This record gives sequence, C-alpha cells and structure tokens, in this order.
Amino acid sequence: MSSENSVNRDLILLGHGSGGKLSHQLLDDLIIPTLSGIALAGQNDAAVLEHGGRRLAFTTDSYVVDPIFFPGGNIGCLAVNGTVNDLAMMGARPLFMSTGLIIEEGFSRTELAEILASMRSAADAAGISIVTGDTKVVPRGKADRIFINTSGIGAVEHDLAISGANARPGDAVIINGTIGDHGIAVMAKREGLDLQADILSDCAPLNGLVAGIIAAGGEAVHVLRDPTRGGVATTLKEIALQSDKTITLHEAALPLNGAVRGVCSILGLDPLYVANEGKLLAVVAPEAAEGVLARMKDHPLGRDAAIIGHVTEGGGRVQMETAVGGMRAVEMLAGEQLPRIC
Amino acid sequence: MSSENSVNRDLILLGHGSGGKLSHQLLDDLIIPTLSGIALAGQNDAAVLEHGGRRLAFTTDSYVVDPIFFPGGNIGCLAVNGTVNDLAMMGARPLFMSTGLIIEEGFSRTELAEILASMRSAADAAGISIVTGDTKVVPRGKADRIFINTSGIGAVEHDLAISGANARPGDAVIINGTIGDHGIAVMAKREGLDLQADILSDCAPLNGLVAGIIAAGGEAVHVLRDPTRGGVATTLKEIALQSDKTITLHEAALPLNGAVRGVCSILGLDPLYVANEGKLLAVVAPEAAEGVLARMKDHPLGRDAAIIGHVTEGGGRVQMETAVGGMRAVEMLAGEQLPRIC
Repeated sequence: MSSENSVNRDLILLGHGSGGKLSHQLLDDLIIPTLSGIALAGQNDAAVLEHGGRRLAFTTDSYVVDPIFFPGGNIGCLAVNGTVNDLAMMGARPLFMSTGLIIEEGFSRTELAEILASMRSAADAAGISIVTGDTKVVPRGKADRIFINTSGIGAVEHDLAISGANARPGDAVIINGTIGDHGIAVMAKREGLDLQADILSDCAPLNGLVAGIIAAGGEAVHVLRDPTRGGVATTLKEIALQSDKTITLHEAALPLNGAVRGVCSILGLDPLYVANEGKLLAVVAPEAAEGVLARMKDHPLGRDAAIIGHVTEGGGRVQMETAVGGMRAVEMLAGEQLPRIC
Repeated sequence: MSSENSVNRDLILLGHGSGGKLSHQLLDDLIIPTLSGIALAGQNDAAVLEHGGRRLAFTTDSYVVDPIFFPGGNIGCLAVNGTVNDLAMMGARPLFMSTGLIIEEGFSRTELAEILASMRSAADAAGISIVTGDTKVVPRGKADRIFINTSGIGAVEHDLAISGANARPGDAVIINGTIGDHGIAVMAKREGLDLQADILSDCAPLNGLVAGIIAAGGEAVHVLRDPTRGGVATTLKEIALQSDKTITLHEAALPLNGAVRGVCSILGLDPLYVANEGKLLAVVAPEAAEGVLARMKDHPLGRDAAIIGHVTEGGGRVQMETAVGGMRAVEMLAGEQLPRIC
C-alpha cells in the first residue's frame, strides 16, 4: 500500500484495522508483545484458558460497522453473532456475553431499542446469555452513532487441538457457503447502490454448525476459523503462516452468489478479500472430509458447503488454481479494502 | 435536569452516560429489560456466574476519558484498574482480561505504545493476564483518538453474599480514602487549570485491599462497591435502593484532599458526585467495622480510610448530616456533571 510509505509512520492508518497485513504488523510489532507476549502460533479467534480443571474460551470484539442497519442485519446482531462465532471457532459452547455500548450524544433511542432487541434475539438464537454491560455516552461528533463491544465466555468440552496452527498435509479446506455476502451487502447500502438483486449479509451464529462438524469429524477437525475482516484470503494466509504449511485453493470450487460476483466485478473487488459474518473455514483430515461435508450440507447454514482447497507441506503460502488452470499467489489483504465492515 | 424535558425525548443525552439518574433510567427502562431481564437487586459491578461447580465474576467497561493522559495515569491503566476493581467489588480474584481498542485514524503510534505499556504494567500489578483482544480503526473524525473496552473474568473463592442488596441496619459505611481526586485531576487537565497543588488521579487496583477486607471481616462484609461515575453519592444511593435501607453520611468524616476541596469550591462542584478510580465503599456489620478499618489502614491504598456513615431501616434513602449539624437528602447525580471522566 503506497500510502503506508508516504505518510508519517507514527500514525495509525485505517489499514491497521483491516484485519489484513497492516493489522498483523501492528499486532505483532506492538500490541501482542506489549500486552501479552502470546506467540504467533497461539493467535486464535478466542483464548483458551484453564481454570479449576475446566477449559474456558474467552474472546472480545468491537463493532463499528457503517451503516449500522444493513440488508440482513444491524450492528446489534452482528456484535452478538461475531462473538458467538469466535467462541465456536475454538469448538466452545457459548455461555455468557458482556456488552459495552459507546453511544454518540443525540443518537436515537428508537434505533437503540431496535439494536438491543436484535442483540437479544441473536443471543437467544445462539443460546448465550447477556449477563453484564456498560454504557458510555460521548459528545456529538466524538463517535459515529454507536459502537458495540461484546466479550464472550464459552465452555470447551472436547479434547481436540483445534487451532490455526494445526493444519496438516493432505487436509481438506471446507467452507460452509458463499463468500463475500456480508461485505457487499454493507457496502452496497453504504454507497447507495441500486441493486436489482437483494444481497443480504450472511450474519448468523455458527455454534450449531460447529457442533455438527465436531460430532462428524472429531479429531479429524484440525482448524476452524471464520473469515471476517480480510476475507477468506487473509484467513487462509493466517492459517498457512501459523501452521507453516501451503494451502492451495481451487477457484472453480468457491461458492459465490451471482449478485455478489456482479458487484465485485463492477467495483473491482476480489470476493476472496470481502468480509463474511456467517461463514467458517474447516481444515479437516482427508479421510473425514466427505463425512464432515455431508453433515454441514444437512445444516441450514451449510447447504452450499464445498471443499475449496487442500493443504500441503511448505512454509506459510496460499495459492489459487484459477478457473482457467493458472496458479496465483494469494496474500493477506494489504491496506483497507472496505473500512468499517464489522 | 431541565434539558431532559426541553429536547426530543427520543434522543440519547450525555447524562445517559453519567452513571447517575439518567443512566439508571436508560438501564431500567430499556437496556436491562431488553438484553437480560436482570432485576434491580441483581445489578452489581460484575455478574457472578456458576460454571462447572465454580463461581466466576464477569464484567465489562468501556473507557472514553478525555484527556487520555492526565495527572496520575492515562486511559490504559484506567481501563485495566477499572475492570480489576469491578471484579474485586464482588470479592473475586482477577484472572483474565480482554482488551478491545477503537482507534481514530491518524492516532499516534507512540501514544498507543505508551498506553499499551501502561495497561501491561497495571495488569501485572493487579495480577491479571490480558489474554485476548481486538483492534478497530475508524476514519478521522469518527471517534475521539482512542476508546478502550476491557472485560474481565475473576474467580469467586468465598461463600459470602457480597451485593449492593445486602446492606443491613446498623452496618457501618467505610471508605478507603479521599474522594473526588480522579474526577478533579481529569477535569483540571482538560480545562487547563493552573493549580498550585498537584491533584493526581487515585487510579489504582483495589483487589489487594479487598482481600484484606474479606480476611478481616468475613461474613460481616455485606457490600463492596467502587464509587466511580456519579461519585460516592450516586453509589450510596444505588446501595440504599438495592437494599431498601437508609444510609446516613457524616459530612465531617468524609476524607477530602484540600486541593480537591478548593477546586470544587471554586467551580461549584460537589465532591460527593465526583468520580473516583481507586476508592471503595465497604458496608460492614458493626461488630467488625473497627477491625476492617484497622486492616484497611495497614494497606497503602487505605491509609486515609474512615467510617463515613451508617445504615438504618427505611426505603432507599441517603441523607447527609452536615458539618454544622443539619441533615440534607442526597440524590443520584442528575444530568452530567463531568462528561467523559472514565
């Protein structure tokens, strides 16, 4: 990203919040060494903690999506499902959630009520209880309407070593459906695009789907990860780096909604880098892949599931076999493609 | 607060984030019924949860303090200590913390590094581990430099019924030191006041002090609460309402730094409503009060501890016996005295 070099390097850029390459640099160079010292291989969607002989998953996310209401959802259900999904990606059963609201003075109480109702519905659907919270109000112009933080605690009730560092040669990479729907739905609303086809955010809780994947795959389930900010490309690159393996994607196998494909084509966006909020990538041992895939297809959130790639030896690379038979390198999102997508 | 009636009632006001009366209205009318259905008597600084036969405390707070650097601390140590203290107020031992950063594009990486270092020092001092986090960046003008959410998990290892609903007639109300230091330190910096005496924020982790209080008082410790937003007055009113009791304060007994008294006097602020970040109110059975007080005075954060009031029968009232012998009613903070104090 050229602006990275052309501006004062002391400044935080939008790209530092993209979930892509700059985010990783900020995390690796400053945030993680200062706060926790967790190594790259330990970076997963949630921390897994031992307490009293039990394992808990713990995760946090702040939501700053713009617009706050979009086709298929709003910032409230997004904030609940996002944290539920981060717990689910550790194979954890979601238990408890906190919610921290930062509201701009003058925000509509009616809209707040709608957002809170959406949070409650999403929490009920995922089976998680919202048990504690906090509300701050800042003067007009000091925040953009509403930001929501959710933190979640889940119970890890399996003995599996599910981690981004656990991909193994021969493993299949499975996705549960079409890519890019959330990011394109939000962007189309934000830009006021008049689409002929409705594109809805895929925002959904994945814990039920994950329970099925674990039931079907057991120890064969090596990695679970939800491709949110930075999209499928960035998430696969993270897995490849953490596991020190190569992942090869098959472009023709990638499920893609035709309308999303059209918008991406018009706007010059690559759907591989567009955020999802109801998708997961499962990296599964080859002998279990078809069984896991079948189980996913039986779930309402997995009807379009597909095997989209495989893992081989070799250090931290992602490549894509294109539909016409070529091979191209896939890197993390550089800079910021769609700011404030979640 | 007259503006409450003169503006569109659908709008969120600064006072809804004050921690005072409007905050309680918003919580009671909208947020709690929608999200969780927790009753008034269940509203404490942290939720206490049962999992696997063990009790966990879970809490969240977002920090939006302005300025982000102030005498005695910055937004980073404030965010850590605030959440440590919410856990400590349930008598919980702090274990794990998350941190969610919302950063404005263009924020200084050097200042970010300083804030993170301060968070790490505060976490180390309190014995809590920062185990998971999230970073979002929003475009310039869409947030004010940096907001930090921290959520914390603690272990409740006692059988005590510590709760704001547990004050009993005859109980003593004890505070561990001077009131209003944090609020006045932040406000003086914000307003550029040239004070002859340094007023420092009292920002500190209270879990060590609480361990001593519980060791000394045991079952006699009925309530622990930290008087942050809304100050001592608002916190005592919350306790009086939750417990359905009357609390009588003795003005002459209130520890108050002379410089804070001076600034309050000049600016027309009542220190009873000014935020603290290293203070706690302990409501303790009379036979144990002197023992708890002595133990507090032995701790570096309790040297100026004092018995400042007592509990009697009667519904949800707080009153103050003034220094000249009068009696006045003490209500919750109405409106917003000092916005963005934490």
